[in-house]
Amino acid sequence: MFTPRPIGFARTPYKDTASIPRGLGAQQQAEGALEILREYEPGLTDIEGFSHLYVIWEFDHSEGFDLYSAPPTDDRPHGVFATRSPRRPNPIALTVMEVLGRSGPTVRVRGVDMLDGTPILDIKPYMSAGIPAEKLRRGWLAEAEARKAAAQQ
Amino acid sequence: MFTPRPIGFARTPYKDTASIPRGLGAQQQAEGALEILREYEPGLTDIEGFSHLYVIWEFDHSEGFDLYSAPPTDDRPHGVFATRSPRRPNPIALTVMEVLGRSGPTVRVRGVDMLDGTPILDIKPYMSAGIPAEKLRRGWLAEAEARKAAAQQ
Repeated sequence: MFTPRPIGFARTPYKDTASIPRGLGAQQQAEGALEILREYEPGLTDIEGFSHLYVIWEFDHSEGFDLYSAPPTDDRPHGVFATRSPRRPNPIALTVMEVLGRSGPTVRVRGVDMLDGTPILDIKPYMSAGIPAEKLRRGWLAEAEARKAAAQQ
Repeated sequence: MFTPRPIGFARTPYKDTASIPRGLGAQQQAEGALEILREYEPGLTDIEGFSHLYVIWEFDHSEGFDLYSAPPTDDRPHGVFATRSPRRPNPIALTVMEVLGRSGPTVRVRGVDMLDGTPILDIKPYMSAGIPAEKLRRGWLAEAEARKAAAQQ
């Protein structure tokens, strides 16, 4: 397989994982930046025409993996591929971010949810409007939300 | 950085890249399967509760990268990070697929757009309905579509 290399690093308000909002109802509205290495800067050409990006990054503080994970949104474990756990066979993360602007190699974004200094692996344009809510099933997450709502009544 | 490993391989109808639908209006409705290695099978637990998945895979036939790419949808080059070109610094691909069912280590899916035998790196649940169409800007892609529509009139 290929050898991963950082194309740049994230600048975010988060110096430790505990400060990153997680779980049900977490709002990822934090602003930050993707600082792309100078050698890759031309690859950003025209990126500011897109309102949103897929950002693929490395869980670089994660070591090893678990086949089951109990996410913060639920008290029950699920298969790791049904969760966003950082402890996965390939420590690859995916975040959709809103583009706020670009200055040379720096893309300002909203929606960062990783530690400051996190290595970025790839950026892709977000090209289609995604899956309509009425066609989406959200498995254990919907069930966990329903249980939480029932417990609050 | 980490050393990527396949968690499984895609089974698709595509034996060569020319047969994969590409470009404006391409419909990715082909059915296929994600055959996950036995050692990772427990990681699929509860995955069938989700209607859609993010599948992260390797462009394993791609060597090297270009900073500019002229996509099939346009006759003008764009920065590689504003395209889905396989020739990227990290040859990582991302496809949203619909879950049709699971039998043990095999997840049947709709929306495969890679060669048969492609290594899968990760699977993540598709948890939110994405960006509403009215909030989405699609940069050069929208412009290319508009030019194509105008040329057809």
